[in-house]
Amino acid sequence: MGLDTITSKPHEALAELLADDMSAVNGLIEDRMASEHAPRIPEVTAHLVGAGGKRLRPMLTLAAARLCGYEGPFHIHLAATVEFIHTATLLHDDVVDESAQRRGRPTANLLWDNKSSVLVGDYLFSRSFQLMTETGNIDVLRILSNASATIAEGEVLQLTAATDLKTTEGIYLQVVRGKTAALFSAATEVGGVIAGADADNVQALFDYGDALGIAFQIADDLLDYQGDSAQTGKNVGDDFRERKLTLPVIKAVAQATDEERAFWIRTIEKGRQEEGDLDHAMALMDKYGTLAATRDDALDWAAKAKSAISRLPDHEIRALLGGIADYVVARLN
Amino acid sequence: MGLDTITSKPHEALAELLADDMSAVNGLIEDRMASEHAPRIPEVTAHLVGAGGKRLRPMLTLAAARLCGYEGPFHIHLAATVEFIHTATLLHDDVVDESAQRRGRPTANLLWDNKSSVLVGDYLFSRSFQLMTETGNIDVLRILSNASATIAEGEVLQLTAATDLKTTEGIYLQVVRGKTAALFSAATEVGGVIAGADADNVQALFDYGDALGIAFQIADDLLDYQGDSAQTGKNVGDDFRERKLTLPVIKAVAQATDEERAFWIRTIEKGRQEEGDLDHAMALMDKYGTLAATRDDALDWAAKAKSAISRLPDHEIRALLGGIADYVVARLN
Repeated sequence: MGLDTITSKPHEALAELLADDMSAVNGLIEDRMASEHAPRIPEVTAHLVGAGGKRLRPMLTLAAARLCGYEGPFHIHLAATVEFIHTATLLHDDVVDESAQRRGRPTANLLWDNKSSVLVGDYLFSRSFQLMTETGNIDVLRILSNASATIAEGEVLQLTAATDLKTTEGIYLQVVRGKTAALFSAATEVGGVIAGADADNVQALFDYGDALGIAFQIADDLLDYQGDSAQTGKNVGDDFRERKLTLPVIKAVAQATDEERAFWIRTIEKGRQEEGDLDHAMALMDKYGTLAATRDDALDWAAKAKSAISRLPDHEIRALLGGIADYVVARLN
Repeated sequence: MGLDTITSKPHEALAELLADDMSAVNGLIEDRMASEHAPRIPEVTAHLVGAGGKRLRPMLTLAAARLCGYEGPFHIHLAATVEFIHTATLLHDDVVDESAQRRGRPTANLLWDNKSSVLVGDYLFSRSFQLMTETGNIDVLRILSNASATIAEGEVLQLTAATDLKTTEGIYLQVVRGKTAALFSAATEVGGVIAGADADNVQALFDYGDALGIAFQIADDLLDYQGDSAQTGKNVGDDFRERKLTLPVIKAVAQATDEERAFWIRTIEKGRQEEGDLDHAMALMDKYGTLAATRDDALDWAAKAKSAISRLPDHEIRALLGGIADYVVARLN
């Protein structure tokens, strides 16, 4: 990996810096996703784990622990815990969303069935609780079990809020905090806690993860409308077609005339979409400048993330965490 | 409740003896199944929790703790934890089995949708981990997170084993230990652990729960073929129609002639069932006496359960636990 790549992709530079730790995490994940009795379990998990996401969340845990000077073994367990919770959530999300593709490959619910996705997700969830229990640290257990409840609550809230035009920016933020930011903030927080960092530094790590997760999700929702589909792997307007209210539309709904409101009611609430509706939706977002406003929000949250960790030790890892905050919104330029 | 009823239904007598504790458990369950942000959550859980099962599992935790002289507050948390894990499992089971009825009422997946059942199940799962974390006792966390993994593993194993004629009595027992007995044994074990019981008594409580759970499930599987449908609320032969290999059929398959084997392959493995097949299956089970043999197995496990707790203090609660072991198989007479 050349220096250019490292400079432009801070998560790859961080992965390189934490390569030994990440390799231990991958080994633990391999080990614990096995099942002596039910071969369907490693089949399904290998499909998903092998698809190779960036492992950003476990890396955040490792980075936070190292940044706070941790020398013990349990940041590995916590990083694997975070990845297992994330993977369990993906399996259940794909059932709920009836998805056919994830990371460019067919989803587990399509390759096997919904039953396997539900039950293997439950298995990984349980495995994550076993892993965190092995740390013997009640504080991290409290943080991660709270995060799990917040994630599930956010997902349920999204079920009802996504197609409801009464959904405000406040409710959107709550959903995003639940479905995305809660795991980011728990990932960084437990890294600090296991390292015995003081309360202010733990809070700083939590704030960083929270703001980074929100910036990440807002950027994702924005790219759904203005991304390069070759790069994002998604079609422009998928969220509109799936009747998912996200920030660019919520901002347009808030300023809608009566006639525009009727359009949103028909297309999102009632889901009676016709040819040309996506173009009209894009025109309304353009009229009120909501894509630009959404981008500003994402940049604000990324700036908050960087600023949150300014009180942490001046260290290469801190610089890379700051770089990651920039990177998740750099896609928007 | 009259004395006759108490004598004939030991779980009701136990519920009466532990009425104050059970009321605290019910209060905690009410409190924790709420969600400030997602009203769908209490709707779904109230439907299920309100359907009022016997709450046998949380009662076992309370009974074990009291029997071992516990005077603290945390047996309440553990009992609520056990009920939440059970409820989460039911929600996911009904999605996996595509069930339309539970306890004589429409299932949550029918009243709402599979999405809600999956995500609310996840929420209750997370809530259960929050509750157990509040006890601050790493041993109970280890036991309950292990039990959760065993349950999920048993459910996945059942997916593939249920229609596979190679499924032996050993694999059946493994599935039953996973899907049913693991929560019973964890329920009784954590009651002893939180009370600080010595290792032998904790083992005795585990053995009791394990054997009781197995007796319970074997009895359930037997009643599917010889129960009074007015009493069980199920139709005779549901498991056969749903192509679920349970003990009475496994015993018949083990002794099958070539012709009989072809019958089981067609009806269970391939699922090509015709008019009269259930009658023929019943005749084959009768030929080899597998219903009687299955009943003997259930009685053996109930006897093991009673014998396991003989070393525990001679106490009214111990007698009632013994009575419960008799009661779960008394339905078979």
